[in-house]
Amino acid sequence: MNESQVKKIISDCLDGQLSLDEASSQVLGVLKLGDAQVDLDRKDRCGFQEVIYGKSKTIPQVVEILGAMAQRGLDNILVTKASAQMGQVLVEKFSGSYDIASQLYHYGSYPPAVDQATLLCAGTSDLPIAQECFLTLKALGISCNFIKDVGVAGIHRLLNYQDDLARSKVVIVIAGMEGALLSVVGGLVKCPLIGVPTSVGYGASFQGLAALLSMLNSCAAGSAVVNIDNGFGAAVLASRILQVH
Amino acid sequence: MNESQVKKIISDCLDGQLSLDEASSQVLGVLKLGDAQVDLDRKDRCGFQEVIYGKSKTIPQVVEILGAMAQRGLDNILVTKASAQMGQVLVEKFSGSYDIASQLYHYGSYPPAVDQATLLCAGTSDLPIAQECFLTLKALGISCNFIKDVGVAGIHRLLNYQDDLARSKVVIVIAGMEGALLSVVGGLVKCPLIGVPTSVGYGASFQGLAALLSMLNSCAAGSAVVNIDNGFGAAVLASRILQVH
Amino acid sequence: MNESQVKKIISDCLDGQLSLDEASSQVLGVLKLGDAQVDLDRKDRCGFQEVIYGKSKTIPQVVEILGAMAQRGLDNILVTKASAQMGQVLVEKFSGSYDIASQLYHYGSYPPAVDQATLLCAGTSDLPIAQECFLTLKALGISCNFIKDVGVAGIHRLLNYQDDLARSKVVIVIAGMEGALLSVVGGLVKCPLIGVPTSVGYGASFQGLAALLSMLNSCAAGSAVVNIDNGFGAAVLASRILQVH
Amino acid sequence: MNESQVKKIISDCLDGQLSLDEASSQVLGVLKLGDAQVDLDRKDRCGFQEVIYGKSKTIPQVVEILGAMAQRGLDNILVTKASAQMGQVLVEKFSGSYDIASQLYHYGSYPPAVDQATLLCAGTSDLPIAQECFLTLKALGISCNFIKDVGVAGIHRLLNYQDDLARSKVVIVIAGMEGALLSVVGGLVKCPLIGVPTSVGYGASFQGLAALLSMLNSCAAGSAVVNIDNGFGAAVLASRILQVH
Amino acid sequence: MNESQVKKIISDCLDGQLSLDEASSQVLGVLKLGDAQVDLDRKDRCGFQEVIYGKSKTIPQVVEILGAMAQRGLDNILVTKASAQMGQVLVEKFSGSYDIASQLYHYGSYPPAVDQATLLCAGTSDLPIAQECFLTLKALGISCNFIKDVGVAGIHRLLNYQDDLARSKVVIVIAGMEGALLSVVGGLVKCPLIGVPTSVGYGASFQGLAALLSMLNSCAAGSAVVNIDNGFGAAVLASRILQVH
Amino acid sequence: MNESQVKKIISDCLDGQLSLDEASSQVLGVLKLGDAQVDLDRKDRCGFQEVIYGKSKTIPQVVEILGAMAQRGLDNILVTKASAQMGQVLVEKFSGSYDIASQLYHYGSYPPAVDQATLLCAGTSDLPIAQECFLTLKALGISCNFIKDVGVAGIHRLLNYQDDLARSKVVIVIAGMEGALLSVVGGLVKCPLIGVPTSVGYGASFQGLAALLSMLNSCAAGSAVVNIDNGFGAAVLASRILQVH
Amino acid sequence: MNESQVKKIISDCLDGQLSLDEASSQVLGVLKLGDAQVDLDRKDRCGFQEVIYGKSKTIPQVVEILGAMAQRGLDNILVTKASAQMGQVLVEKFSGSYDIASQLYHYGSYPPAVDQATLLCAGTSDLPIAQECFLTLKALGISCNFIKDVGVAGIHRLLNYQDDLARSKVVIVIAGMEGALLSVVGGLVKCPLIGVPTSVGYGASFQGLAALLSMLNSCAAGSAVVNIDNGFGAAVLASRILQVH
Amino acid sequence: MNESQVKKIISDCLDGQLSLDEASSQVLGVLKLGDAQVDLDRKDRCGFQEVIYGKSKTIPQVVEILGAMAQRGLDNILVTKASAQMGQVLVEKFSGSYDIASQLYHYGSYPPAVDQATLLCAGTSDLPIAQECFLTLKALGISCNFIKDVGVAGIHRLLNYQDDLARSKVVIVIAGMEGALLSVVGGLVKCPLIGVPTSVGYGASFQGLAALLSMLNSCAAGSAVVNIDNGFGAAVLASRILQVH
Repeated sequence: MNESQVKKIISDCLDGQLSLDEASSQVLGVLKLGDAQVDLDRKDRCGFQEVIYGKSKTIPQVVEILGAMAQRGLDNILVTKASAQMGQVLVEKFSGSYDIASQLYHYGSYPPAVDQATLLCAGTSDLPIAQECFLTLKALGISCNFIKDVGVAGIHRLLNYQDDLARSKVVIVIAGMEGALLSVVGGLVKCPLIGVPTSVGYGASFQGLAALLSMLNSCAAGSAVVNIDNGFGAAVLASRILQVH
Repeated sequence: MNESQVKKIISDCLDGQLSLDEASSQVLGVLKLGDAQVDLDRKDRCGFQEVIYGKSKTIPQVVEILGAMAQRGLDNILVTKASAQMGQVLVEKFSGSYDIASQLYHYGSYPPAVDQATLLCAGTSDLPIAQECFLTLKALGISCNFIKDVGVAGIHRLLNYQDDLARSKVVIVIAGMEGALLSVVGGLVKCPLIGVPTSVGYGASFQGLAALLSMLNSCAAGSAVVNIDNGFGAAVLASRILQVH
Repeated sequence: MNESQVKKIISDCLDGQLSLDEASSQVLGVLKLGDAQVDLDRKDRCGFQEVIYGKSKTIPQVVEILGAMAQRGLDNILVTKASAQMGQVLVEKFSGSYDIASQLYHYGSYPPAVDQATLLCAGTSDLPIAQECFLTLKALGISCNFIKDVGVAGIHRLLNYQDDLARSKVVIVIAGMEGALLSVVGGLVKCPLIGVPTSVGYGASFQGLAALLSMLNSCAAGSAVVNIDNGFGAAVLASRILQVH
Repeated sequence: MNESQVKKIISDCLDGQLSLDEASSQVLGVLKLGDAQVDLDRKDRCGFQEVIYGKSKTIPQVVEILGAMAQRGLDNILVTKASAQMGQVLVEKFSGSYDIASQLYHYGSYPPAVDQATLLCAGTSDLPIAQECFLTLKALGISCNFIKDVGVAGIHRLLNYQDDLARSKVVIVIAGMEGALLSVVGGLVKCPLIGVPTSVGYGASFQGLAALLSMLNSCAAGSAVVNIDNGFGAAVLASRILQVH
Repeated sequence: MNESQVKKIISDCLDGQLSLDEASSQVLGVLKLGDAQVDLDRKDRCGFQEVIYGKSKTIPQVVEILGAMAQRGLDNILVTKASAQMGQVLVEKFSGSYDIASQLYHYGSYPPAVDQATLLCAGTSDLPIAQECFLTLKALGISCNFIKDVGVAGIHRLLNYQDDLARSKVVIVIAGMEGALLSVVGGLVKCPLIGVPTSVGYGASFQGLAALLSMLNSCAAGSAVVNIDNGFGAAVLASRILQVH
Repeated sequence: MNESQVKKIISDCLDGQLSLDEASSQVLGVLKLGDAQVDLDRKDRCGFQEVIYGKSKTIPQVVEILGAMAQRGLDNILVTKASAQMGQVLVEKFSGSYDIASQLYHYGSYPPAVDQATLLCAGTSDLPIAQECFLTLKALGISCNFIKDVGVAGIHRLLNYQDDLARSKVVIVIAGMEGALLSVVGGLVKCPLIGVPTSVGYGASFQGLAALLSMLNSCAAGSAVVNIDNGFGAAVLASRILQVH
Repeated sequence: MNESQVKKIISDCLDGQLSLDEASSQVLGVLKLGDAQVDLDRKDRCGFQEVIYGKSKTIPQVVEILGAMAQRGLDNILVTKASAQMGQVLVEKFSGSYDIASQLYHYGSYPPAVDQATLLCAGTSDLPIAQECFLTLKALGISCNFIKDVGVAGIHRLLNYQDDLARSKVVIVIAGMEGALLSVVGGLVKCPLIGVPTSVGYGASFQGLAALLSMLNSCAAGSAVVNIDNGFGAAVLASRILQVH
Repeated sequence: MNESQVKKIISDCLDGQLSLDEASSQVLGVLKLGDAQVDLDRKDRCGFQEVIYGKSKTIPQVVEILGAMAQRGLDNILVTKASAQMGQVLVEKFSGSYDIASQLYHYGSYPPAVDQATLLCAGTSDLPIAQECFLTLKALGISCNFIKDVGVAGIHRLLNYQDDLARSKVVIVIAGMEGALLSVVGGLVKCPLIGVPTSVGYGASFQGLAALLSMLNSCAAGSAVVNIDNGFGAAVLASRILQVH
């Protein structure tokens, strides 16, 4: 925030156009609520406004935060890892849409899609995380070439898409169990590659640890990995990559 | 490889300009050696030719692979995680340069630098991995804004570089111990962010596990993580990101 | 317990003012119940009387212990990690108050607040543990400067409180996910710092392991760490620190 | 051992053709030495005589065991995981051959090869374990189609061998790092598949744990896994599979 | 797929005998559904058609996949790790049979049994996984010598079956807790041995980790291990072993 | 089983006093049921007849096993880790007693108590496991000096029992959280000491791992450790120790 | 840094009393060296100037950093976890003292001791870490009541010091193996308690993990824990606690 | 220590027969040295005097402690986990004997053997730990039936000793790799059973973790487990068991 911006806020406050609380909030870049401090400068600093992490929050807390953001006229807001009950309450109070598979709630209008990512999903069981990624990309103004069920046990399914892969500007690979898809794709593309290990599997998958370790040790350079089941994070990174011009 | 390329190779072979072995090698995209199969199409498919992983290989194996690649006229070749003794032998046999801190050997000439990455290193102890990243970027034609020793225990050291960060097209964060630097930087930039956890630390760092888990759980979206001590991999990903135009 | 105290108890017993059981109990410093032995000297030795750990106990066991303590005239008693059902039963039987977020039950009257701790909570999701800490401090006679939602992804939110931090006598940092807040605060204060990793997060947070390891490896000296989700323990330590005069 | 065999041993002993120790040893099926009991019936029961595990044994212990076995006229004996120094002593004392890469010592003559296994090795760094497997197969009378350096980062190197794979009767896959080769091969063959994770890698490979978990969670059914770096065990299993007629 | 097969498909399409979608599907070897791509060549390549992994899929997804496979006339189809509710829906819609203990659903007719495996189950508590193995073998055309409750704590129970074991062509050992049965059996047979660790146990069994590690470290060579609770995978491997002729 | 015993069984069978099944069962030492093989010689070999592990078994399976054992006239039978529902069914069908805290069911009559063990329980939360131990000892004919709630946070509670400890013939220490009680007691007694870590605790107790590791590393020699929450196993070991005369 | 301080630096620079580099360095609060940025304001912010972490740094790096700090007139500087060779070089170049047991180097003069901490060391094997703590306290101006070899296996050794403990203002407990000492002391004092788990032990101590988990789960409130083998960190925290007035 | 003993010490001190230091030492039950406090009452309390843990101690520390103990006339002293160099110094200074395999030093004379334990060692590689156990038993006055190399891969080797086992009063089982021997023996004996997991193995043995978990989960009740490689601890427990009369 530069000097003239600060002066503008203060003079608006003096003129009675802004309350003291609001002026302070704008100068500090923070909207203080009962249990939260919304980061008002996030979009300027990081390119996308604050996203509400729904897990471990109570429904009233999320309602308060989302309500305050909406009241300030913010649009295109996400709540991630929101329970079905939380999703239902949010839709009732603020309309917007809730996707139960991906546990993602969206408020407001989506921006137009200006770019495209390739989204590869190893198995049908991994779709909830892929869906979280798909919807987050949509909120970030990115459309998808969404290719499903191309796990390495039938490698021809993947090779059928070799041209799609070669043309991609960024590829997100979503896979559970042994997560081998990332390495195979890594040998087929020139573009950046993001791995999302999922907790799909049982026994020695240890809730996604196997896929995570596998992806971190990929023999194919050019990829990096986000947290287990973090389709949201992969989407944000992909959108930033696509905006490197 | 398209039909005309294949026909050209075969007719060159019929004309005696290519040996049968060489023609077969070109058609298959593989150079078969005693203990290795060099992937001749890697550069076309993935943007950079095969890199030799030096760890767990014997010196004669690396000498054979590098020798064969050099003999085919390949240039700008890397050997990663090469022991001091291996580095010395390679320099003696092929000249090139070996950096003992990063255990990286480079053969041939570096390409001109066409783009720039920002490289943040948390502590002086993390420099060997940062150096591996720096030299790999150099081989990939990327120059660096290399910012050292900006760990979060003195956050003003990092904030002094806020303008550098805001201008960056890609940021690589290299940190051991608790790896907190990634999250803090994550809140300051719009560009893609790559975390490299290092094995620097002792006790409950468990050889880099603490930094790895910390970076994977970063509350700041827009980042992804490579293997512990994998400065090389971060550089390859960064170069791909910079080439997304 | 010195000789004159012992003699007093025994003579009171001889005089019939104390039952044999009670005299024995006082001499041994233990109140024997069916399933428990209440440590009657805990307050003299350790500064605060025995706290009842509610988890894995049955409701009748807690009712018996609390009832016996109340009957002896003990006041200001805590039951930690008490389920909602246990909390309800205790309030019905003994009045007192139960806080469902922090699973903490309190019996009796709070002491006056004689000192102040600074309580930093990284995210809204971490509030239940912060609340456990806050209420325990209250029972220990400590008031709080309770600063919420200052996670490092928006570091300016924290830096807005730099003066508060500089003035603090003890700071408790409560954070899940990657727990980076502890290290950043560690570079900003001179006073003792207590880290409380929480189990907030998913995937590779491994129920708080990531935050725990991160905090243990903090590059900022001057801090120590309690168990995952142990807001109670941090409060007890803070109160002892504040009483070092 | 049936009754007539026992009677034969005892009458040989009565006749003075067998010492009492020897007769007892044959009846019990055990050759007792100072620090070991050689299992004399192993070949009858399990198809191959006892193999000496060289690690954690002293050189004199191995010399004693091997010497006693040789003295009884046993042939084709293996010592696994033998240090270079142990290998040198054994060659000096008993001739035979020692392979330093695989740490395998062999005594006596190899049987003729009666069958063939396919041995796939992901990278040149995995060759020591592949070599252990190769030499064990040789001792078990199995020849190899030994295919090296076909890691998934250049999948065409593997696909070049698709016909070899389709014709295989058993395939052993040896891979470190993320161990993805097993899953890809699993989708290409009808025959039994044995995975050998190796400790090749660094950082989050955790000495082979990543490859082990990856292989255990393979989405391609029809495979099983042996211990990390256990090329020997994979060979024994392969030889048993080939003998299922 | 060879050239004449491709030509046949295309001419059938030209003749109107195949739709364009179907012809494309046959050429690519993939049946594209909403959320899945069924691998139509799996049986040719791997010997058994694609098996549906029921866990983490929604019931409508499984209904769609199974329906499409059935509609193409595929028979003898398995759905593994299917919840009771999923099993009930499948039986209602497609008849077939569902076994609640093993969570396995089977559609269509079983092939005649052409060979026999030996199935050893350590304890009654391990029976659900043994049952999954038994039923998968049945779908693969393998009958069983199913020996139950022969854990090593009463070794005579196992030794009673020594003749059965000596005659076996392949043995599957299913055991939880410490999984010691695999090693003991390993010393009694010449045939291939497959270990299935189960999650039966508590405390330091860590959901099957103890049995898994125990089996991987078996001192008896000739065995390999599948994922914890993966009775299905062991059956597939066993059937492949039996078909090595 | 010696020759005369075998002859007796066979002649009883010839006389029609034993059915063929029963005779075979006695000779083999095994009672074959649908899903189980009851080890009939366990008491002769190991001193106590087979105990039924209730977890992961279905209620009908346990009913069948217990019914068969009861029918043969066996008495004093335990079912461990039995769910409340299982316990209820067993009591209804066979009478006997079920203790819900310890999940232990007992059938038949208890033997007279012939010896005494000392049972130390660190906290009230650990009582369910202590109770499992107590009741198992009772079934084994051992009475208890059962000392409750003597955790080390009030060491005088333990020291009050120093004489009891010095007189003990065997001490069982049951503790969760950090399990420190074992080491402290280890320095106070001459007799054998058995540690039972419990899963009581939260956060970094990791379901009893902390207590387990702590007890295994006890600086006080003379103790050994059983599985987490294995009060049953500790009781069996204690009873064997008391019978060493 | 306030405005007048900044003006003073700039005018000194204009007067030629400060070089441009030095002025910039003072304004930024950072001394930039080749591989490091020394935090010049650390003492003002955190109470003690920057400490050099010696591990993973090269000797020339540490020489450069220490040399630059010494040249600016800084005194009382620590290098932690310095190898014997590094220590020797530092003593030769800068005098100062090096303690080989604790791997701690000290440069300059110690401040006078103004307060006292109690330092408890469980076993003689833990002394190197205790010594690191002792010497760091000395550099921080704290004297010690250093009580050695009071592990819980002989609890009377500890109880002999009960009066010392009751009088303490802060207690540091250093223990490896099972780390039980922390809990026992926790029940005896009113003051803050700091646990330092050490890597002393073998087997299931897992390099200090057992002691770490044990201390984190201490049933005695009022304590917190630092990293394994972090005697330095405990000393810094203790000194801050003693300065809370 | 009773009143008359205390009076005797004090009067001896008054008479000049004891120095003040010595008298204080006897009253406190502690011999204070530079770096250690020898527990003088250990033998009275625990049945055997303090044993010196050699690992992580310096040679001068051990020399000081052993020297002081010897000077007081103590006899039959053990130093465990002593390096070869430490062993050599101790033998030179105090004579006594050092066993390099088990890293055990013994000073003084052995007591007569009054009882017997059975010591089972799974493999020759486990002998160093078995030897540590054997020699510790010898120092405790216990002779051994030492049975070597009876791993379960050749179960008849073990069954040959069934009579020995049935007659045993206590059995110690020492095994690495999968540690299955404990469970098998558990089904064959009535006496107490002690398991010693060893770190013998590689790969997924994880330095003894596999054997440890296996033994803790043994399906055969009546056993308990000591730390990995803790042959010493097993011997102490065995000697205590044998002394329960």
